[in-house]
Amino acid sequence: MRFEVSARLDYEVLASSTVLLNIKPLPSANQLLLEETFQATPPARMRELYSETGEKRFCVIEVPDAGNISFSYAAQVETRYQVLPGEHLTDVPISQMPAQVLSYLSPSRYCQSDRLYKFAAHHFGHLHHAFEKVLAICDWIYAHVEYSGGHTTPQTSAFDTITEQVGVCRDFAHLGVALCRALTIPARYFTCYAYRLQPPDFHACFEAYLGGHWVVFDATRMVPLNGLLKIATGADAAETAFASTFGNLSFQNLQVKVEALEPGFHPVNSSPTHGFSYSW
Amino acid sequence: MRFEVSARLDYEVLASSTVLLNIKPLPSANQLLLEETFQATPPARMRELYSETGEKRFCVIEVPDAGNISFSYAAQVETRYQVLPGEHLTDVPISQMPAQVLSYLSPSRYCQSDRLYKFAAHHFGHLHHAFEKVLAICDWIYAHVEYSGGHTTPQTSAFDTITEQVGVCRDFAHLGVALCRALTIPARYFTCYAYRLQPPDFHACFEAYLGGHWVVFDATRMVPLNGLLKIATGADAAETAFASTFGNLSFQNLQVKVEALEPGFHPVNSSPTHGFSYSW
Amino acid sequence: MRFEVSARLDYEVLASSTVLLNIKPLPSANQLLLEETFQATPPARMRELYSETGEKRFCVIEVPDAGNISFSYAAQVETRYQVLPGEHLTDVPISQMPAQVLSYLSPSRYCQSDRLYKFAAHHFGHLHHAFEKVLAICDWIYAHVEYSGGHTTPQTSAFDTITEQVGVCRDFAHLGVALCRALTIPARYFTCYAYRLQPPDFHACFEAYLGGHWVVFDATRMVPLNGLLKIATGADAAETAFASTFGNLSFQNLQVKVEALEPGFHPVNSSPTHGFSYSW
Amino acid sequence: MRFEVSARLDYEVLASSTVLLNIKPLPSANQLLLEETFQATPPARMRELYSETGEKRFCVIEVPDAGNISFSYAAQVETRYQVLPGEHLTDVPISQMPAQVLSYLSPSRYCQSDRLYKFAAHHFGHLHHAFEKVLAICDWIYAHVEYSGGHTTPQTSAFDTITEQVGVCRDFAHLGVALCRALTIPARYFTCYAYRLQPPDFHACFEAYLGGHWVVFDATRMVPLNGLLKIATGADAAETAFASTFGNLSFQNLQVKVEALEPGFHPVNSSPTHGFSYSW
Repeated sequence: MRFEVSARLDYEVLASSTVLLNIKPLPSANQLLLEETFQATPPARMRELYSETGEKRFCVIEVPDAGNISFSYAAQVETRYQVLPGEHLTDVPISQMPAQVLSYLSPSRYCQSDRLYKFAAHHFGHLHHAFEKVLAICDWIYAHVEYSGGHTTPQTSAFDTITEQVGVCRDFAHLGVALCRALTIPARYFTCYAYRLQPPDFHACFEAYLGGHWVVFDATRMVPLNGLLKIATGADAAETAFASTFGNLSFQNLQVKVEALEPGFHPVNSSPTHGFSYSW
Repeated sequence: MRFEVSARLDYEVLASSTVLLNIKPLPSANQLLLEETFQATPPARMRELYSETGEKRFCVIEVPDAGNISFSYAAQVETRYQVLPGEHLTDVPISQMPAQVLSYLSPSRYCQSDRLYKFAAHHFGHLHHAFEKVLAICDWIYAHVEYSGGHTTPQTSAFDTITEQVGVCRDFAHLGVALCRALTIPARYFTCYAYRLQPPDFHACFEAYLGGHWVVFDATRMVPLNGLLKIATGADAAETAFASTFGNLSFQNLQVKVEALEPGFHPVNSSPTHGFSYSW
Repeated sequence: MRFEVSARLDYEVLASSTVLLNIKPLPSANQLLLEETFQATPPARMRELYSETGEKRFCVIEVPDAGNISFSYAAQVETRYQVLPGEHLTDVPISQMPAQVLSYLSPSRYCQSDRLYKFAAHHFGHLHHAFEKVLAICDWIYAHVEYSGGHTTPQTSAFDTITEQVGVCRDFAHLGVALCRALTIPARYFTCYAYRLQPPDFHACFEAYLGGHWVVFDATRMVPLNGLLKIATGADAAETAFASTFGNLSFQNLQVKVEALEPGFHPVNSSPTHGFSYSW
Repeated sequence: MRFEVSARLDYEVLASSTVLLNIKPLPSANQLLLEETFQATPPARMRELYSETGEKRFCVIEVPDAGNISFSYAAQVETRYQVLPGEHLTDVPISQMPAQVLSYLSPSRYCQSDRLYKFAAHHFGHLHHAFEKVLAICDWIYAHVEYSGGHTTPQTSAFDTITEQVGVCRDFAHLGVALCRALTIPARYFTCYAYRLQPPDFHACFEAYLGGHWVVFDATRMVPLNGLLKIATGADAAETAFASTFGNLSFQNLQVKVEALEPGFHPVNSSPTHGFSYSW
């Protein structure tokens, strides 16, 4: 399926600064970038980098002391995905996990799985399979956490959300990741463009490692999974921030847009009978 | 300089389990492994893995349900290091940092640099150079944090230690890392064997990225820097745990030993005039 | 019912210090002190105080620099209680609560009810009556929190326990108090001697304000409610510590004993049909 | 000195609710209420209460389901104060403190002195007298904590502020209270009207117990101490909230005004040579 995505970020520049922008879809075999444009207005020196593990690419932009600056990005992207029968999403023994997958068992800044063992065991420990557990985690989050902006901050973590029970996509994803890890299911966070997200904005979801696949879950249930276009994957929001600024600039405005370039979009979600994956 | 290191860990096994052991020195151009032996008693199936970024190698061991199990490791290691004049340890602009270095600016599980900006700016912001700042951070930690076991837990973080002011090597290193990152100096945590550490144990220190080098610091001042033999490098202790156990076993005992195989060890530390590095 | 209680605390004195001891049962119309003795060995200057609200009495003891010191207390106490039919334990509107009761709606050091509103509403908000809610809170705590020493510290709070789900009587009581307050049910913490507690120790429970009574609950279910002998009542453990020490002494040992002086003790607990109260 | 104070709070009422309002100056020998008026528009049933310890009085108001409601308060108040020479502000041994003063040594919801012992000892432990220590605490807070709204929330505590170093009057006062208690100096929080506070608002400060007096301190240095008109005194903001609402209403607006009714106001503050007290 082909999509057109675009984003524009405006800043007021108070002193020359450096910005790391992480808003471009990650190219992969299942997410082809057909064309893309990125520009700063006024122009600024920039450099594109890939993280060593290939899970994100980002721009480092040197912003001169210049009143205001805007970053505009647009791309055409074609995505493919897999719908995997539930019986393929088997539990993977730790002894058979690849090294990179094992790293997603560790607690991270906003996903303190090391403090959630008993909670996770109480609520989900009676279930037999990892896939069932992740579905139950999503159900629990959806049932218990209210989706509402303005209650949480960038410092809010899964440990807070489990009790405070309110937050945005980032908080939902952090809690999903943390509970999976507490059950020894590798899980990672990703940022994305999201087709049909209302109101339009960047989005965040998570993946759990099941049957050798990174299977996508979205506990907010706000968008169809096949409308997601991945930007960056990492341990949590600390590794995948849309923008990190160093110096002195003030964020003014964000506009995000996602459109389908083809007709016939049929929403796909995960369910007890099948999982959804962008990886092969 | 050649060293012999050894470690032995004993566990009581209550049910078949999996153990990730991260106790072998990391081979590199500056840390040559001349010979090593590792064995489980009774024997167990094991697999050695390297993390994708090459910053640690670890064993995944399947422990059968077997009463007790011991892991014994011994190696001869030859290390080389650099003493770098302070004037080479220049500030590196963000726009010139490699992608992997940039990742060490992010907050992590036990190093919540995102909550320490003002503290770091107040205490160290008046200093001109990154190297000065890191030295001042180590001085502050050494002056304010009491080295004492039994007060902190595996969940203790830099945010706690900055106020509670007591801890062990792990807590000292976490605080050093967090304060560097809060000042936009990339910093990473590492575990190691440590020659002349009393009482003998594993140790943890940190590295800051200065003048294009990963420069070693130890705010505990308990061992000479040229007596350190690196095991694993990562964002913090969450990524570099000596042992992670899954299943049901109970830790019984740890023995660690480091000996010099050559005479003439002369302690080297960092100072305002020079830094110390194991990387080239 | 008549009981004999005794307690002995031993300290090593490292420098002259002051100790506040809060281990004497609180005299009231329903808890008569028939006789009591208290002595320090070696002798020390002491003063007995009542808190302004009459909810605790305590000793302030000046400990000379003297090697070791022991405090020994023993008393005969006669207690009476009320068993109240559930239908009397009606909800009290805020507008009819006395000032002192209202103060037990506020969050306190270890009972951060201000962070538990949504959690409490989700789990207990569907129930109709305050008494039902408190019973359900006790059931939830008993079902989810493991009673086990050594996992929590004096700094552990209800906000931690709700997720970490392990603790001792103090943690159980703090969580009960915090959840009640989050539901606008005044609740307070109390320390006590506890008949038939195994192993013998001081104990802590809580009271909720229902139908104009302070009704006793013990989410640990470790002792019959009519075997409790109240020592101090307060917002939480910060106000009711058994011993607060200022200076330099090191706690060595504690012995607590409770015996019935009459035969025929019949355990009484709360249940869905009736509550239990020591107040009239 | 005579002042006229007034406050108006507007709420949108979404369902019938109960409000506890704590905005009336506390009458005392040194704070005489010459006249006062309080009214709800539309009228509502209300009751005035004093806390058992006499440290606050407050209104319990039953708000019918009525669109909007406003509470308007105005009073003429005459205040007297003492300026106490520093040499009178002697250290009080614990063994000579009254019971009610001792209660202000305990940690509370937002003043976790039990986690600040080492910090307090490191920074202020070398000073000889309690009065000096409190002055140094105020200096430290003023030097390190930035006064700025919008960074903290009602959940922010002294433990956060000590590191995050930004906040409003409430955060400054909480930190002052917590550091005093960590040094065994009884300290309590109070809310007040504040003459010449810009912009006009309610204010919060703290008192430390020195030489048998409750001596006033304001680490924000925003208003002269003799322009403060006390409303409520308590362990921290949890006990002294201006408004606590139960039910469903939405805060809309607050207006506060303080005017001098006499000429010749001469600002008075504390200094190393004297303290300032409203108590006798």
